[in-house]
Amino acid sequence: MDVREQLLTAERVRALRWREGVLRVLDQRQLPARECWLTLEQVGAVAEAIREGAVRGGAAEAIAGAYGLVLGLRARLAAGQDWATGLEEDLELLRRARPEACQLARALDWLSARLGRLAPGEDPLVVAEREADTLLASDREASLVIAQYGLELLQRHDEGARAVLVHGNAGALSGGGFGTALGIVRAGWRAGLIEHVHVAEGCPGREGARLTAWELRADELPVTVCADTALGLLMKGERIGWLIVGAERIAANGDVAAPLGTYPLTVLAMHHGLRVMVAASSACIDLAAEHGEELLLEPEGEEIRQMDSLAPALDVTPADLLDAIVTERGLVERPDAQKLAALMCHKRLH
Amino acid sequence: MDVREQLLTAERVRALRWREGVLRVLDQRQLPARECWLTLEQVGAVAEAIREGAVRGGAAEAIAGAYGLVLGLRARLAAGQDWATGLEEDLELLRRARPEACQLARALDWLSARLGRLAPGEDPLVVAEREADTLLASDREASLVIAQYGLELLQRHDEGARAVLVHGNAGALSGGGFGTALGIVRAGWRAGLIEHVHVAEGCPGREGARLTAWELRADELPVTVCADTALGLLMKGERIGWLIVGAERIAANGDVAAPLGTYPLTVLAMHHGLRVMVAASSACIDLAAEHGEELLLEPEGEEIRQMDSLAPALDVTPADLLDAIVTERGLVERPDAQKLAALMCHKRLH
Repeated sequence: MDVREQLLTAERVRALRWREGVLRVLDQRQLPARECWLTLEQVGAVAEAIREGAVRGGAAEAIAGAYGLVLGLRARLAAGQDWATGLEEDLELLRRARPEACQLARALDWLSARLGRLAPGEDPLVVAEREADTLLASDREASLVIAQYGLELLQRHDEGARAVLVHGNAGALSGGGFGTALGIVRAGWRAGLIEHVHVAEGCPGREGARLTAWELRADELPVTVCADTALGLLMKGERIGWLIVGAERIAANGDVAAPLGTYPLTVLAMHHGLRVMVAASSACIDLAAEHGEELLLEPEGEEIRQMDSLAPALDVTPADLLDAIVTERGLVERPDAQKLAALMCHKRLH
Repeated sequence: MDVREQLLTAERVRALRWREGVLRVLDQRQLPARECWLTLEQVGAVAEAIREGAVRGGAAEAIAGAYGLVLGLRARLAAGQDWATGLEEDLELLRRARPEACQLARALDWLSARLGRLAPGEDPLVVAEREADTLLASDREASLVIAQYGLELLQRHDEGARAVLVHGNAGALSGGGFGTALGIVRAGWRAGLIEHVHVAEGCPGREGARLTAWELRADELPVTVCADTALGLLMKGERIGWLIVGAERIAANGDVAAPLGTYPLTVLAMHHGLRVMVAASSACIDLAAEHGEELLLEPEGEEIRQMDSLAPALDVTPADLLDAIVTERGLVERPDAQKLAALMCHKRLH
């Protein structure tokens, strides 16, 4: 059985499901205490789930938003309203649910554009649902491909260390599939290259402790949660091969905006001889942003400057602290502007 | 006005006071929400205050314990009991309040030994109270001298950066005086060499956010609390001259056991060009411990191994990550075994 089949066979954690015209989402605010599914049948309920953090993670928000638009469209059509006018209202409602979510905004723009150029006789509801399904399927597919590339990297640099450290929740809970960073962790575990996963607690949101540990334990991986302030001690005391993290956005030169705490962890990783791998959808790579500082000029950057205590959502890690960036388009070692440009120009191989 | 006078004149924060035979302690469990003083008139109440963390910090625990013994002795004598037998019980009660507190244990041993060799006609109660007073006075004195040495260091390496970062609570709340690390911060602020203090939040206990920020704000210093995961970003973005921390124990080679999170902060400090200063009583220097790993073979080390999640109270920072160690015996730059041995052999200059 190859990695792909292994992951598909063993799949236990899903952030959301679309079935018979209803969106069901796992309420992540209640994890790890309760596994509680919300049934969403109205666009307003989807917007609320995103706004309140029941659904979170860039890809999961985008997929949920797309299905939210489908639900809105269906209600407009059932009520005999002008769907095109209603569409604008629904788009606005969903966008406002989390204005700083780039993947959500991009998915909604895409759907809106597609519905703006319907062929004669095309049913908008059928088209919208098909587009949302495609978004979900391609995110699942991307996570499988990323897992394969990541596994390749683990094999290539295998020096016998069987523990890894992860930070944030770049996992199944953040999208439609197996996760980016956590997809690689799952693949590495199934292939016997990973035997233990250390999870950084991830204060102030505690996403590592609340979400990442939960989803890996659900898959029966051996997991230890480590307090953020104890990560230096952990790296000094344990033999850990890789730090594996996700990314929110990646600049043209390979600098990475990722959940707060990623940057200091990469500095500690360098000091202690851990390799560092960033796993993300290639959609996160923004060739228009020359370097990392430009990544925080976006809404997330605004949050930073407006907050009293310094606890922004993201920080920026310079490319020279990274050993590799893994995307569904391929993997890049020792990333730089030239390699990332080449990656983004490649025709997709799958 | 010299530093010493400035600090004494401006003093606002006290962890405890002994007045007219009563020990009053500021209940640190309630900070920063409420400033609430406990009145302790029985040895049992003192033991409970230490056990429950109303009093915390090595020196403060030791001083409170010494006065606790005085209270116990007074009650035994008032009840016409055999004070020497009662003393053993009280010692045991106080020791068990926090068995891993070395300074408390040492203070109790000292008092017990002193009471074991009373001269004919000496009143045990008078002797015990005088010893406790001396312990408090010498801790206050040590903090003033440390503040002066630390200020000397700030002046010597002044390159114009007017912000510092502190971690843990090596402050007035941890002892009888102005604090070790925070005594230096207070002195630096009064001398105009420090204009802003960044305080690391210090999860899981949040001592930085709860205690250090509170006591510095009480003295009207400009303070910002920074989430632990944001400290990398902070060092990259702000011009910070020094990381100033306390220590629990110091090995013969200059390795330092200090509150959890100190070690990774020193690595980040090195990466970002901050100087690192450790301030502690010379009583923390243990020449019998050759290097840092031996410091954690003590009770604190046991705690680490017994805990499920990795969140011990202390971590160890190797001496080569430190720019200076400051004690009341003097200051040592680029600490090593030879310099620390010389420091400990010196006659005290004050």
